[in-house]
Amino acid sequence: MTGFTEDEVVTAIRRLLTAESPGVTLGVGDDAALVEFGEHVGVLTTDMLVEGVHFDRSVQSARDLGWKALTVNVSDVAAMGGSPRFGLVSLGLPEDTELSWVVELYGGLLEAAGEYGLALVGGDTNRSERVIVSVTVTGETATPVTRAGARPGDAIVVTGSLGAAAGGLVLSREVPARGAAGRHELLQALARPVARVGEGLTLAQAGATAMIDVSDGLAKDVGRLSDESSVCAAIRLSDIPVDEALRDAALPGDPLDLALHGGEDYELVATLPGPAVEDAAGKMWDRFGTRLTEIGEVREGRGLVAVGPDGSERPMEVRGWDHFGG
Amino acid sequence: MTGFTEDEVVTAIRRLLTAESPGVTLGVGDDAALVEFGEHVGVLTTDMLVEGVHFDRSVQSARDLGWKALTVNVSDVAAMGGSPRFGLVSLGLPEDTELSWVVELYGGLLEAAGEYGLALVGGDTNRSERVIVSVTVTGETATPVTRAGARPGDAIVVTGSLGAAAGGLVLSREVPARGAAGRHELLQALARPVARVGEGLTLAQAGATAMIDVSDGLAKDVGRLSDESSVCAAIRLSDIPVDEALRDAALPGDPLDLALHGGEDYELVATLPGPAVEDAAGKMWDRFGTRLTEIGEVREGRGLVAVGPDGSERPMEVRGWDHFGG
Repeated sequence: MTGFTEDEVVTAIRRLLTAESPGVTLGVGDDAALVEFGEHVGVLTTDMLVEGVHFDRSVQSARDLGWKALTVNVSDVAAMGGSPRFGLVSLGLPEDTELSWVVELYGGLLEAAGEYGLALVGGDTNRSERVIVSVTVTGETATPVTRAGARPGDAIVVTGSLGAAAGGLVLSREVPARGAAGRHELLQALARPVARVGEGLTLAQAGATAMIDVSDGLAKDVGRLSDESSVCAAIRLSDIPVDEALRDAALPGDPLDLALHGGEDYELVATLPGPAVEDAAGKMWDRFGTRLTEIGEVREGRGLVAVGPDGSERPMEVRGWDHFGG
Repeated sequence: MTGFTEDEVVTAIRRLLTAESPGVTLGVGDDAALVEFGEHVGVLTTDMLVEGVHFDRSVQSARDLGWKALTVNVSDVAAMGGSPRFGLVSLGLPEDTELSWVVELYGGLLEAAGEYGLALVGGDTNRSERVIVSVTVTGETATPVTRAGARPGDAIVVTGSLGAAAGGLVLSREVPARGAAGRHELLQALARPVARVGEGLTLAQAGATAMIDVSDGLAKDVGRLSDESSVCAAIRLSDIPVDEALRDAALPGDPLDLALHGGEDYELVATLPGPAVEDAAGKMWDRFGTRLTEIGEVREGRGLVAVGPDGSERPMEVRGWDHFGG
């Protein structure tokens, strides 16, 4: 690597990670990290972000990238009803990478780690042609929730609102940029998604039978949940919580479309017995100020059904949505 | 990706990973894996292999690459005195990758997982320009050993023999290949290194005060250990267990040089109180047929000292060794 030696970047990262963290016996700098495991079920997840596929270094700041790389992993832990504990980061860095860029990246990683109360306990840097950010997060839970437990009769609920990140992506591609209302909110939703950790725990404790995070779009991810549970998911289109900033922005296209197929929202979709919804929604609002919206129901059968405002039903289209062009 | 869709590769990988594993509540296919944590200290490590930097796809088989990618992580766990439990794998795959290549890669990963008694519990595939294999391994230990505990008076010991992998690399670059004696052993040492898990545990239980695996060369890695322990390491050159196949191969250059600076051996170097060496060596031989060789001593001070056959001493050179050219 030009600009800095590997030792320099290791030392810089290590310096950033020296803060003592509860439960970390030994962090960065040895062959491996030593951590205390609790009595709960461990949750392990890993996700890799690749330059040119998942992000564009010329557009996205290193700090936002670091935040997002950790958040997407934490979101996976949250979707199990888990709480994140420890994170490990492997980087691939091109020769033209500046050390300041790497420090900013870790700044974002550490900012997210602080937000989610997890400790980064391992780091590894390598040379590569494009930037690679590979993150692993371990967590634990006393109430694990998989994708596979949805039962006919369960309600389908979703946290927060949908479509803002997709709106941000549409906005970020507009040249010249329009002065759309809610511009900042939408771009922020894309750059700085938030993992719903407390909300996931609340849903798990409320008796969620299945749960998944919305990374690839509501339709696609609910489809995965219903597939894994061998059930049919019926979604009432008029109940989808389309993001308000997205509605106000009046972007080209239908906001509902972005909410259904846009992805990158990192909201949680869960199924739970109908009688439990009101209590879960109340607790979620009281604890986190996060809305919980009932958007449909689980039925016998397979597949996805879209229920229109007039009660008419049709199979729901699951569209791949091109997040990053190319 | 051409050749196969992402769903196809996910399905293929999942099919390979469906075997039930002890301690795995939920493996591949959900947002995250669920595992049982023991009462021991958890060990977490991650390592990324990048095509063109760590390996050459035109030379190295996918199966060997998979084996090695897991082994290097397990070796880090072994160097803590730990036993591996769970592994996660993130892949970056170029568009020209064949599904059969990915299946072979996982074949090697699973072969290694079987060898080391760990469960692969997570997988993630992405598109990238060059192949990226990013592995995380979690383990546990009742007797953690770091790099930082070496004390003046301790003996320095190393498992097995050194230099064979470097010899294999020299051989693999020779065009035309010579019919060197021990050719197969040397190439195998490079392609199929073995992590010293049982040996690491034996050393930890014998009271090892510090330990590290030899990934970048004996001199460099002992230097790291002595730096972390704030001690001086004195290495007796005539006691270095230079690999016999390397000696027999009569490659250009000094075999001792490859043993000192070659790297990729994944043997363990440990420090332990002198009286404990004989017992540890006996147990290691009885349990695993692995030699344990005393190669030096820990002293007050800092740095590395090379002790010659005649007892003369000089600072030991720490050479970066160019593992993969370019």
